[in-house]
Amino acid sequence: MGRVTARRRASHVTPEDAVTRPETLVVEEPLEIRVNGRPVTVTMRTPGSDVELAHGFLLTEGVIGHRDDVLTVRYCKGGPDNLNTYNVLDVALSPDIAMPEVDITRNFYTTSSCGVCGKASLDAVRTISRYSPGDDASSVKADTLSAMPERLRTEQKVFASTGGLHGAALFDAEGTMLAVREDIGRHNAVDKLIGWAVEQNRVPLTGAVLLVSGRASFELTQKAVMAGIPILAAVSAPSSLAVDLAGQSGVTLVAFLRGESMNIYTRPDRIKR
Amino acid sequence: MGRVTARRRASHVTPEDAVTRPETLVVEEPLEIRVNGRPVTVTMRTPGSDVELAHGFLLTEGVIGHRDDVLTVRYCKGGPDNLNTYNVLDVALSPDIAMPEVDITRNFYTTSSCGVCGKASLDAVRTISRYSPGDDASSVKADTLSAMPERLRTEQKVFASTGGLHGAALFDAEGTMLAVREDIGRHNAVDKLIGWAVEQNRVPLTGAVLLVSGRASFELTQKAVMAGIPILAAVSAPSSLAVDLAGQSGVTLVAFLRGESMNIYTRPDRIKR
Repeated sequence: MGRVTARRRASHVTPEDAVTRPETLVVEEPLEIRVNGRPVTVTMRTPGSDVELAHGFLLTEGVIGHRDDVLTVRYCKGGPDNLNTYNVLDVALSPDIAMPEVDITRNFYTTSSCGVCGKASLDAVRTISRYSPGDDASSVKADTLSAMPERLRTEQKVFASTGGLHGAALFDAEGTMLAVREDIGRHNAVDKLIGWAVEQNRVPLTGAVLLVSGRASFELTQKAVMAGIPILAAVSAPSSLAVDLAGQSGVTLVAFLRGESMNIYTRPDRIKR
Repeated sequence: MGRVTARRRASHVTPEDAVTRPETLVVEEPLEIRVNGRPVTVTMRTPGSDVELAHGFLLTEGVIGHRDDVLTVRYCKGGPDNLNTYNVLDVALSPDIAMPEVDITRNFYTTSSCGVCGKASLDAVRTISRYSPGDDASSVKADTLSAMPERLRTEQKVFASTGGLHGAALFDAEGTMLAVREDIGRHNAVDKLIGWAVEQNRVPLTGAVLLVSGRASFELTQKAVMAGIPILAAVSAPSSLAVDLAGQSGVTLVAFLRGESMNIYTRPDRIKR
């Protein structure tokens, strides 16, 4: 895990003083994900849990639905000077899984007409989703939910030293933390988490709560839907399209989860007081 | 500007009470940018300043270098039901400007070998950058810099109502705010700002300070380099690759700009005490 943080010298300036000292920073490096040898995406991520990241990315983009859809994942060798940079992963899919479009993430929202709009984005998720979190009958107590952000903060050890990482965690409905992941990109933290669940054969994540340290965007809500997660909780604000997608998909969206208060935007029936 | 925020009903839950009330949210909608009729990217953004966003995106990706490289920018018509969703922009380039690769943002970091790595990302920026912010001899006083975050917060009116927006602002070396933009995506806020400068014929942004409300990533540093901005200041933490790119490009990178203290990671000679 030596690559998760790095040291760089900085001048710490105050009105009284300027002191040059080493600072601990979060590492950011590109990861290229290839499928059957063909590049499908490059993301700037914090190294670590890369295989999970690839699994989570492919599941939330609708390429795979189960861990058995992946045959092998390996770091490529053969870069410049024949070095393995550990920044390129090649995923070999089971023969019965269709190759994704090369530009899957970008084409995802795109229609061939000029009609790209929020509604088209919602429809696209509905079209490719394998699971129906709206049918999930589980519920969670409000005070169980309120205790989750503090659990996440306690686990966010790298954030504590660098201030630079987004955190995401999965809990069960009783409030037990299942897994926690961090990354410089909040979508990557969630992909790592969902990739963990894929590898554990726990997808769809029935009865699970996905907690994110920041805001709830369309993209994060999409990932919850694609993994069959019934409850998405965010410490900060949601966007309009996140609320709309959660509403259409039957996901419970909680935001501004702070202290003992919260806002519930959709499917409040899953939160018990 | 009615589309910048939207109202959705939410249940505000506290241990004592649960009240259903309308909440103001930041709007998130897809924007597809086409060049000469061909789609090059889709980004989830907050509507508003879309023409600036397109200019800034194309400049920071190295497609254009000057406002004269763009002939026209227009919203497409002809979507479903012949409606204009105001979510697709078509940019007509001057005939002497090369069409970008369809997948420019993703190919940007990608090499054809397995050698994708941080260094390759840095080299890619050096290869396509038209400007050399490292040669910029301007400087700014530390207390002028320290006053900027409060100016940005004062201007972030939408954030105040929704809690959901990233802010970015351009200042001159004397601390005068030139422009401020907000977006649900921090890269979009910076693209809008740089697009404003392109339209004002102020690129390269010699002597300017780019302030961002969040963290300093590789991508934001790249945008500063591409627009010829000598000083990038962030309220929160920088990443390793942001510091490395700033160092290689001669950009002054300031982070943790809070109260009267700050960390200067690169080119501290531009900050006068």
